[in-house]
Amino acid sequence: MTENSLSQYCQSKIKLIDEALSEHIPGNAYPPGIYDSMRYSLFAGGKRLRPIMLMAAADAVGGQGSNYLPVACGLEMIHTYSLIHDDLPAMDNDDYRRGKLTNHKVYGDGMAILAGDGLLTAAFGTMLSQPNVDSAILVRVVKEIADAAGAAGMVGGQAVDLASEGQTIDAKTLKFMHQAKTGALFKAALRAGALLAGASEKEVGALTYYAEQFGLAFQITDDILDVVGSQDKIGKPVGSDIKNHKVTYVSLHSLDGAKQLAQKAVDDALGSLSEFGTEAAILRALVEYLIIREA
Amino acid sequence: MTENSLSQYCQSKIKLIDEALSEHIPGNAYPPGIYDSMRYSLFAGGKRLRPIMLMAAADAVGGQGSNYLPVACGLEMIHTYSLIHDDLPAMDNDDYRRGKLTNHKVYGDGMAILAGDGLLTAAFGTMLSQPNVDSAILVRVVKEIADAAGAAGMVGGQAVDLASEGQTIDAKTLKFMHQAKTGALFKAALRAGALLAGASEKEVGALTYYAEQFGLAFQITDDILDVVGSQDKIGKPVGSDIKNHKVTYVSLHSLDGAKQLAQKAVDDALGSLSEFGTEAAILRALVEYLIIREA
Repeated sequence: MTENSLSQYCQSKIKLIDEALSEHIPGNAYPPGIYDSMRYSLFAGGKRLRPIMLMAAADAVGGQGSNYLPVACGLEMIHTYSLIHDDLPAMDNDDYRRGKLTNHKVYGDGMAILAGDGLLTAAFGTMLSQPNVDSAILVRVVKEIADAAGAAGMVGGQAVDLASEGQTIDAKTLKFMHQAKTGALFKAALRAGALLAGASEKEVGALTYYAEQFGLAFQITDDILDVVGSQDKIGKPVGSDIKNHKVTYVSLHSLDGAKQLAQKAVDDALGSLSEFGTEAAILRALVEYLIIREA
Repeated sequence: MTENSLSQYCQSKIKLIDEALSEHIPGNAYPPGIYDSMRYSLFAGGKRLRPIMLMAAADAVGGQGSNYLPVACGLEMIHTYSLIHDDLPAMDNDDYRRGKLTNHKVYGDGMAILAGDGLLTAAFGTMLSQPNVDSAILVRVVKEIADAAGAAGMVGGQAVDLASEGQTIDAKTLKFMHQAKTGALFKAALRAGALLAGASEKEVGALTYYAEQFGLAFQITDDILDVVGSQDKIGKPVGSDIKNHKVTYVSLHSLDGAKQLAQKAVDDALGSLSEFGTEAAILRALVEYLIIREA
């Protein structure tokens, strides 16, 4: 698959996802203040990577990804809430995200906290509105997503990140932090798509491994981009990790070492798809093009 | 039922709830920082009113309330997260709650935001671990709770509260704000208990009305206590609503007017239970003793 075909696939899915998100978080709902603030960040140019991963996983096991838009949208709401809260002055204190003012710079800290809370809560209401799926499977999937997003997952990773700023942490702690902060939700997305589409346990296992390697490659690439990227492309000031004395894969392994680690993770992710056919083309393309984002 | 019997009933339920909460948010989990912060507020002396209401509603329709501890605990986690976030400097900026330092005064603003996020997320993971309930009913119940806690409910009420501080709002807006901020979760608790225990639609309807009146009486009483209570009993400085220029039932209706409104809500709540037998004794006692909290 060419990068162009992948881009077309993503554009078509983004259209579906954006329409569904706008139905679940409507622009004319009461009270308007909180909905405005939630929608500001929800429609601030996100790449919709997590919902696309869910849909691509469903496709990869012979299902129809677009049948699972409510669960897919829930993942995007969780991702978006985490960005709003991360950007707050009490956390990373970022004024810009994707080239736009962050939520709290527009709506104030209090409303930004509530917008995050509203999106996190809406994520679960939306996921539980998923039709045409066996309820027991839906319960399992949404519970997995909650576990991945919570204190043992994404929130826990963020807490370790917060506590370790300006401090030295070892490679093992860094790995945990990133698996929890970024990897856990990717893994839940892939597994959700597979489980919702009725995948076999073997297929779920392969996609779980794919997700772990994908998440790792994603995080290492993020650290690399903070050093060699341009503000235009990554939408935030380059070098902010260095400025904030953050431990990253680059600071621990050097730029070349980090690039090698990223390449190995990509290769391992591709290897896990060896028994899948052309239905997994999107998953292959997603991880192949991931690490050349900076090119 | 005497106030003493109600107190004994509540103590026995609180013991069950606290044990279950400690299993779901364990003290020895990794990473420790975030779990410490979550547990600090979760075990800061809450009255466990929402989980008790859920259990009492299940009892009232002939079920066994203690069978539904996971969903009951989820309600308490949602309530606790909302208090942590409300107390933040960007919101109500309170240093004390129930006579103890608020979460952010102990752990810092960033960790307090994450502790709230962790509890909200854990609420859904915990509720979806509820065993021995038909999955379709569980999905319905947890979705109702998400809707009650979200932007059209509790978070929305909080957003209106935040936006209206220092401003004049009318009685209609005040009513919406409190129904959303406090009433919605009470209603979800009562309905959840009834639905989980297999209540008829008629019973669910009666308990829904009970919950609405209970929530109203609760909020009016809260406003009254802010004027006539003592810091010892309510655990925060008396008069903080006046200090913060908040519109309350007392500021809108005078102290006597507010007391009359509270009594009417209590009477209406009791009326809705007229077709229930002794199984509803706890629900009757809860609303009867509620408005004499300050006595």
